[in-house]
Amino acid sequence: MRTLKITLAYDGTRFVGWQRQAGGDSIQGLLEDALAAFEGRAVSVQGAGRTDAGVHALGQVASVQLTAGHDTAVLMRGVNVRLPPEVRVLAIDEAPPGFHARFSARSKTYRYQIRHAPVVSPFEQAYVWHVPQRLDVEAMRAAAAAVAGRHDFAAFKSVGTDPATTVRTMTRSALACDAAGLLTYEIAGDGFLRHMVRAIVGTLVEVGRGWRDGPAMTALLGGGRRAEAGATAPPHGLFLVGVDYD
Amino acid sequence: MRTLKITLAYDGTRFVGWQRQAGGDSIQGLLEDALAAFEGRAVSVQGAGRTDAGVHALGQVASVQLTAGHDTAVLMRGVNVRLPPEVRVLAIDEAPPGFHARFSARSKTYRYQIRHAPVVSPFEQAYVWHVPQRLDVEAMRAAAAAVAGRHDFAAFKSVGTDPATTVRTMTRSALACDAAGLLTYEIAGDGFLRHMVRAIVGTLVEVGRGWRDGPAMTALLGGGRRAEAGATAPPHGLFLVGVDYD
Repeated sequence: MRTLKITLAYDGTRFVGWQRQAGGDSIQGLLEDALAAFEGRAVSVQGAGRTDAGVHALGQVASVQLTAGHDTAVLMRGVNVRLPPEVRVLAIDEAPPGFHARFSARSKTYRYQIRHAPVVSPFEQAYVWHVPQRLDVEAMRAAAAAVAGRHDFAAFKSVGTDPATTVRTMTRSALACDAAGLLTYEIAGDGFLRHMVRAIVGTLVEVGRGWRDGPAMTALLGGGRRAEAGATAPPHGLFLVGVDYD
Repeated sequence: MRTLKITLAYDGTRFVGWQRQAGGDSIQGLLEDALAAFEGRAVSVQGAGRTDAGVHALGQVASVQLTAGHDTAVLMRGVNVRLPPEVRVLAIDEAPPGFHARFSARSKTYRYQIRHAPVVSPFEQAYVWHVPQRLDVEAMRAAAAAVAGRHDFAAFKSVGTDPATTVRTMTRSALACDAAGLLTYEIAGDGFLRHMVRAIVGTLVEVGRGWRDGPAMTALLGGGRRAEAGATAPPHGLFLVGVDYD
């Protein structure tokens, strides 16, 4: 058996998300089916992050164990031929035994895009959350910076999920705004609760609109109920940028 | 009656093209239907260029005559609410009586994108022609430059069309290639025959692949039959960039 590390990008618009499920195309399902053609039997891949329906990836990572002895370049070309153009394998590398895309990950980076302008271009409408209303970007920037560090993110976890701990460490949390009104929020950390990035972004926008004051974000980072934080931002502005390993 | 100049962008992927026709959504049809809601009766818009199915626009221009007295900003917001997100009106301006998007145009600019790399990103696959094979970019660049000037483009017009003259003047024709293998061809001129840009690009790629030599392009610019030039490049790499008026 060999273990492979697969790096892939996808436009999540028309998929049900990373995870294989009944009733729609999943990235995991498409990748497993494409690999099965080489392995001659069903295969199971592990993803670093379970992106939801509509969420995109620039550098998702998956791990898989295969017996098929194909050269990684041959495998990559063959898998890409079997995948729809909205999903592309960018690299396949040999990995040490025991490598697991999720459990071996040291940190993940996500990006969320907001278009703060009257009109959204047809070419980015599937990749930004359109917020045309007045925003206090400085207040948002300060609230975003407060998220960096070790905190209890209970107020930002999806209702119905029950992780062992809701404490996570964020090594980066920063909001930038360019002259054309594209707000880019980047966050990196050792782990993310379900819907956590989107709940943080929804809260940042509520700070920007003046519905909450800046210190409200800091208060929420000490643990709290989901209902106390902001609404979950829509999925299509979110990108899994990349996953780091030791 | 007032005359309006409407500037719009669209992602042409899922449309049948600019022109209204049975069996599918056209940009013209969607725009006319959105304007009719304000006018209270059917309206007819004229487009500067009839982009084909799958072709995109960054700055298409349309003209229309309306009796409705709405402020242009109100009209723009209202029309955008009625259009799908793949089509956006970017500006509506009052125009002098007699202004016609097509007949008043002095020049139009088109761009064609080719991704010359092993893999195409999911985020650009709908906007580039993927040509992974070896290309002589220098030969393509020279052939592209030869297209500038006044020529008989008969060899680059769609079979079945019969314009009064096939002579056109191109004020710009240039190919650029960035470090990541994105080839961008830009052409501007006083008029374009049907499929002309795509036939030129198809011919440029045949020069790049070594199927034709560079001077072949010059020979074709003296008038010729369509069969003598290269295959028509696919529509989804083409963008109508903008239209200039006096």
